Amino acid sequence: MTAEDAPTALHRLRQDNAERVLGCLRERGELSRAEVAERSGLSRTTLSAILGDLLRRGVVVETERAPSNRRGRPTSGLVLNPATGQYLGLELGRNRLRLVLADAAHRVRARADLPYGAARSAADRLALAERAVREAAAGHGISLDSLAGIGVGSTGPGELVLAPAGGLAEHAPRGRELVADRLARAFGAPVGVDNNTRLTALAEATWGAATGAADLLYAHFSHGVGGGLIIGGQLVRGTGGVAAELGHLPVAEDGPDCWCGGRGCLERYASVPALLRATGHRRWSVLRAAAERPGPEREAIRAAGTRAGAALAALCTAVNPGRVLLGGELADLGEPFAEPLRTSFAERGMRSLRGVGFGTATTAPWGGALGGLALALRESPLLARYPLPGPGDPGPSVPAATGS
Amino acid sequence: MTAEDAPTALHRLRQDNAERVLGCLRERGELSRAEVAERSGLSRTTLSAILGDLLRRGVVVETERAPSNRRGRPTSGLVLNPATGQYLGLELGRNRLRLVLADAAHRVRARADLPYGAARSAADRLALAERAVREAAAGHGISLDSLAGIGVGSTGPGELVLAPAGGLAEHAPRGRELVADRLARAFGAPVGVDNNTRLTALAEATWGAATGAADLLYAHFSHGVGGGLIIGGQLVRGTGGVAAELGHLPVAEDGPDCWCGGRGCLERYASVPALLRATGHRRWSVLRAAAERPGPEREAIRAAGTRAGAALAALCTAVNPGRVLLGGELADLGEPFAEPLRTSFAERGMRSLRGVGFGTATTAPWGGALGGLALALRESPLLARYPLPGPGDPGPSVPAATGS
Repeated sequence: MTAEDAPTALHRLRQDNAERVLGCLRERGELSRAEVAERSGLSRTTLSAILGDLLRRGVVVETERAPSNRRGRPTSGLVLNPATGQYLGLELGRNRLRLVLADAAHRVRARADLPYGAARSAADRLALAERAVREAAAGHGISLDSLAGIGVGSTGPGELVLAPAGGLAEHAPRGRELVADRLARAFGAPVGVDNNTRLTALAEATWGAATGAADLLYAHFSHGVGGGLIIGGQLVRGTGGVAAELGHLPVAEDGPDCWCGGRGCLERYASVPALLRATGHRRWSVLRAAAERPGPEREAIRAAGTRAGAALAALCTAVNPGRVLLGGELADLGEPFAEPLRTSFAERGMRSLRGVGFGTATTAPWGGALGGLALALRESPLLARYPLPGPGDPGPSVPAATGS
Repeated sequence: MTAEDAPTALHRLRQDNAERVLGCLRERGELSRAEVAERSGLSRTTLSAILGDLLRRGVVVETERAPSNRRGRPTSGLVLNPATGQYLGLELGRNRLRLVLADAAHRVRARADLPYGAARSAADRLALAERAVREAAAGHGISLDSLAGIGVGSTGPGELVLAPAGGLAEHAPRGRELVADRLARAFGAPVGVDNNTRLTALAEATWGAATGAADLLYAHFSHGVGGGLIIGGQLVRGTGGVAAELGHLPVAEDGPDCWCGGRGCLERYASVPALLRATGHRRWSVLRAAAERPGPEREAIRAAGTRAGAALAALCTAVNPGRVLLGGELADLGEPFAEPLRTSFAERGMRSLRGVGFGTATTAPWGGALGGLALALRESPLLARYPLPGPGDPGPSVPAATGS
C-alpha cells in the first residue's frame, strides 16, 4: 500500500464501518448505542466517531426509548432518519395481495390488502399491485420518489431474484424475474423476490415471535405447506432454491405420488386440502367449527399433527434450529394440531432436539408482506444514497425537518 | 473519527485485509493471485500492496504451478511460507487414532495411524495420542514449537469446543472439553474439537471430492451413521450441536425405539451392525464377500440403500445442498448400495432435488484427521504471530531459509 492510497483506503474503511452501522439499524429498526456496538463489532471510539458524523448529517436520529431497566430511566435509542427512504413489502399470495409501506425507521405508514378479483394473469396482477401501491402512497402522503427498496413474497419454491432499479432483463422475463423486472421499472427502485413462506421467517425474526433470533425454522401449514429457515441470521435458500420445503418432506413410506415428483409428501397429510379431503367437508370454516368438539374432525387434525411432528423432527435433525414457529390455518387450530405435533416430534426426534422451543408465529396474515419489507431493508444499502464525507467533501445531509 | 485515530484505523484496515488474504491461503493452500483477489474481494491495487509486503517479509512465498491453461505456460502460485507454522489434525476414532501433521502450505509432513490397544480411558487415549504426535514429529524432524493450531475429530454428536493455547478449564473438564484442554496444555497451541463426520465434510471440501464446494452434505455409513453439512462455505453445527445427524433421521414410521430417544432412526437400517443383524453374519468381511453375487446379502444392502435414499431426500429437502458425498463401509460396497440409494432419493424427493450431484468421498480413512487439520487451518489466525508492520515498526520477517 503506497502513501497515496492512504486517504482512499481510510475513507473506504470508514465507509465500510458506516455501512455496518447503517446495516444494523436497517435490519433492526431502533437500537441503543450499546446494541449497535455489539452487533457491529466496532470499538467505542470508532463507533462514536461514525455516529457523530451520521447524527450531524441527520442520517441517524436519536429517539427516547421507553424505560427498560428497573430504575425506570428512559434511555436514548438510535434509528435511521425516516426521511432517508421508504421501503415496500408486497405479498403476491394465492388469491390476494398485501402490501406494507414503511420508512427506514421501521415505522409502518400504510397497509393494503385486496383480492385479485378479475386480474388473473401475472401481468394483470402486477398492474393491480402497482396501482394499489400508488393509491396507498397517495392516501398517506408518501412520496414514492424516496422508495429505496422493494421486497416481494411470491408463491412456489425457487431462488431469490434481485433486480436493480432500472429493471432486470432484456429477454422476456417469466415468473419471479417478471415480477422483479416490472416493479423495478415501475418504481425505479431495486427489487428482491423470494418465496413468501421463507420471507415470513424473516418477518418473524424481525418483528414477530422470534425477534432477533439467529436460528429459526418457520413452518407454515395452509393450502400449501412450506418452511423458512434462518441459520446464523441468514435465510437459507439452498443450491436449487428449495431449502426448507417442508411440504415436500417425505413422511409416508407408501404414500401417493406428489406433483413435486416425490412420494408421500407431508403436504398430502397436513394441509387444508388434505384435511378437507379426510373429513369430507368442503369448507374450512365448517371443519374448523366441527373440530371444537371431539369427533372425526378432531381425529383427522390429530393425525395431521402427528405427521407434521415427524416431518419437523426430520427437518430439525438436519439443521437443528433453536426455535420452531408454527403458522397457517392448521396452526390457527391451536392445541388440537399443536399438541399431537409436539408429541410426535418428541417421540420421533432424538433427545438432543428436546431443547427446541416451539411457538406460534405472530405476523400473520402480514408475514409475507412484512418479510418482503425485511428483505428490502436488509438488501438495499442506504450508503449509496448517503455516502460519508470524503476528502474535501462534507457529504450529503438529510433535511432536518422530516415529517412522518 | 478524529485525525489522531487515522494511522491506527488505517493500520487496522491493512491488518484486516492482510488477515483476509492469509485466511484464503490457510483455507485453500495454493492459490493464484487472481484466485486470491476473487476470494478476498480486495481490489488489485490493495491486494498488490498487501502481497508485496507479505512476500517481502517471507510470510507468503511464490510457487511455480503446473500449467493449467492450453498454452501450457506455468503460472505462479502463492502459498503461506511453510515455516510460518505447523498444524495438527487428529482423529480420535472408535478403535484407533489417526494423525496428520502439515505445514501452513498444506504439505502433509507426517501421518500416523495406531490402535488404542490397552488404552481404554479418555485420559489414557489422550496420553497415547500425545506420544504418537511427539514420535511422528521427531521421526520427521518437525519442531512442535511451531505448532500453530490443532483440530480434533471425535465420536458422538455435540458442539464445537475451542481451547486457547494455555488450556480451557479450571473445573475438571469432561468429553470434548477434556480433549481440548489436555492437548492445548500439552502442546501450547489452540485446539478445536468437533465431530469427526462433520470434519470429514470439511476435509472433502478442502482436499477431497468436493474441493472448493460451498454447499455440501457428507453422508457417512459405518458402525454409526452421521453427516456433515456445509452451507455457504461454513460448517453448520446447529443450536444444540446435532445438525446433520443423518443416523437419527426418522425413516420408519413403526420403527423401533433408538438409544437417541427417537424412533425408526436410519442408523437402525443402514449401518454395519444393522446389515450384520439383517444377514446373520458376524463379520463385515464375510458379508462383503457374499454381497459380490446376488443373494440375501445383496437384498439386505439394497433395502439399506433404499432407506438411506429416503433419508437423504428428507435432508436435502431441508437444506438443498448442491452435492452429496457418500462415505463409510456401506458406501465402499459401491453400486449395490449406491444404486438403490439414488433411485429411492429420486423417487422420494421432489423433482427440484434431481440437480443434486452424488459422489463418493475420497479422503477416507483420513477424513477425520484431515478434517481436523482443515479446522485448525481455518480457525488459527496466523496474523497474531506475524502482524503487519505498524507505524515505525517494520514487522517480523520469516527467515528466508525454510527447509521442508
